[in-house]
Amino acid sequence: MKEFELINRYFTGRGISRRDVDLGIGDDCALVNVPENCQLAITTDTLVEGVHFFADIPPRALGHRVIAVNLSDLAAMGAEPAWLSIGLTLPNIDAQWLEAFTDGMHEIAEYYNVQIIGGDTTQGPLTITVCAKGIVPNGKALTRSGARNGDWIYVTGPLGDAGLAIEARKQGWSIAPVHLKNANERFFYPSPRVAAGQVLRGVATSAIDISDGLLADLSHILKQSGVGAVIHADKVPTSAALNSLDNDELRLQLALAYGDDYELLFTVSDDNKNMLEAKLNQYGVEPVCIGQIVNNDGRLELLNNNQPWPLPEVGFEHFS
Amino acid sequence: MKEFELINRYFTGRGISRRDVDLGIGDDCALVNVPENCQLAITTDTLVEGVHFFADIPPRALGHRVIAVNLSDLAAMGAEPAWLSIGLTLPNIDAQWLEAFTDGMHEIAEYYNVQIIGGDTTQGPLTITVCAKGIVPNGKALTRSGARNGDWIYVTGPLGDAGLAIEARKQGWSIAPVHLKNANERFFYPSPRVAAGQVLRGVATSAIDISDGLLADLSHILKQSGVGAVIHADKVPTSAALNSLDNDELRLQLALAYGDDYELLFTVSDDNKNMLEAKLNQYGVEPVCIGQIVNNDGRLELLNNNQPWPLPEVGFEHFS
Repeated sequence: MKEFELINRYFTGRGISRRDVDLGIGDDCALVNVPENCQLAITTDTLVEGVHFFADIPPRALGHRVIAVNLSDLAAMGAEPAWLSIGLTLPNIDAQWLEAFTDGMHEIAEYYNVQIIGGDTTQGPLTITVCAKGIVPNGKALTRSGARNGDWIYVTGPLGDAGLAIEARKQGWSIAPVHLKNANERFFYPSPRVAAGQVLRGVATSAIDISDGLLADLSHILKQSGVGAVIHADKVPTSAALNSLDNDELRLQLALAYGDDYELLFTVSDDNKNMLEAKLNQYGVEPVCIGQIVNNDGRLELLNNNQPWPLPEVGFEHFS
Repeated sequence: MKEFELINRYFTGRGISRRDVDLGIGDDCALVNVPENCQLAITTDTLVEGVHFFADIPPRALGHRVIAVNLSDLAAMGAEPAWLSIGLTLPNIDAQWLEAFTDGMHEIAEYYNVQIIGGDTTQGPLTITVCAKGIVPNGKALTRSGARNGDWIYVTGPLGDAGLAIEARKQGWSIAPVHLKNANERFFYPSPRVAAGQVLRGVATSAIDISDGLLADLSHILKQSGVGAVIHADKVPTSAALNSLDNDELRLQLALAYGDDYELLFTVSDDNKNMLEAKLNQYGVEPVCIGQIVNNDGRLELLNNNQPWPLPEVGFEHFS
């Protein structure tokens, strides 16, 4: 199969067609329209075999995941996802693999009403770079720099499941099949918090998606907002799968310092706290308050059952 | 060096700041503004070590080239380049290499007034995916589908030099140093025809950039416009470097079927031919007429000194 055949078979004419796309796949560029009084939000994420996923990841999960992690960045800005460009580097053409991989892509793209408008297909070690574009009303985007003293700190759902899935496999942990299945499902098919991000818009004071780990991602907000925080480790929501670990330290390590779950972390003022909780509930999201922003020279203080708790090593680091 | 340090040292605060960028590197997304009555043009190109370039390519050239090939796609639509997202996968951190590589990127970005607004840096086999965004007035973009019977076919400059540089190295051809130097320069530092693309806007009937080879890229225009063409191989402009090959067949093979020079191929009606030539001349571009669009069931007829000439094998193909 040649490059053009591959594009024709797996991309052209598949997926949704948005009315704001004048020209999709098949010319030197795509042509799209951004509505008036809106800004364009743009993000890029790369997944590399052996670094971000195991070689035997189900291809449908990989297709889902590479789009999900990009939509998660749009969600963290409160943007409405619109268009995707895909840079796909493949070692060879495996029709069965490609069919499942692109099924995974098209399924999530369709669910979130985003259109794949172009990209590049090349031969080489399996690497996928997605550039996602979304739309946000002028001046309404959520950034990392708006957290203020006294704001409450929330997460949109349980943390640590993706870490559990990865580490259970790496370390050969023995985990009940139902818990392993659930943890794998969260790693393979993360749900970007797109609706929640749009609900937060104009109410939350800052937001970020938890891709590198709760504490690492919170530290970006603290730094860019010029504030500190107190976090209660015992309040961080965790799943039944994670709770099945009988090692409390390990459980907290995964929940606090592992990324890849793609929940949102956000801050909100005391005045707006209850209203925002109620509004998120309407969208099926149950945010959990895990701490508060404080003025303490940018420090991050971690408590567990109100006792000081040592900060775990934070987040995934390339090139460390 | 960690990922954040790498981004800080080589990307953040370097390069130009455009007034239409509200938020650049450092949040979940960049935020930019598209002017009213304009469309957004989006393109993506990936370069992979060992496929698109040799491992020992000068890093400054690689940084230049990966941006140039993307700007060339914007040029082919008549778009004004605006913003770049970079997906950079590196096997390791080599400060000297990175310094030169990012110098090459920032130099060309500055020259064309484009801002690097974000991306992702990961560890893995050397692969670079750039997503370039540009702006074009509503309805004025150049596409591949507008060529009409009787239109003249042009290229914006000499072809085959990049192919000469690559093949001379691969095959160990003996070429005069000055010619080899010039051919390498064109392969390493291609000049995307950004100004020419904007001059063509609203006048040329179709355009494409020559990345896969003249005949392969022309065939896209023919297919998408539903027309055929006659090309005069002897009229295709070639450099002194390429002319120094004493094998005429090889010379034509490189000029007609090798890509990577990033000149534009365009069509223009007989009425607008002279005006467009004069206008391009004002921008230092000397377009050369190499044939004509004809109605002949989509066939591509190649003549050399008015004699039929066999079509060379066309274009670079992944997975062929």
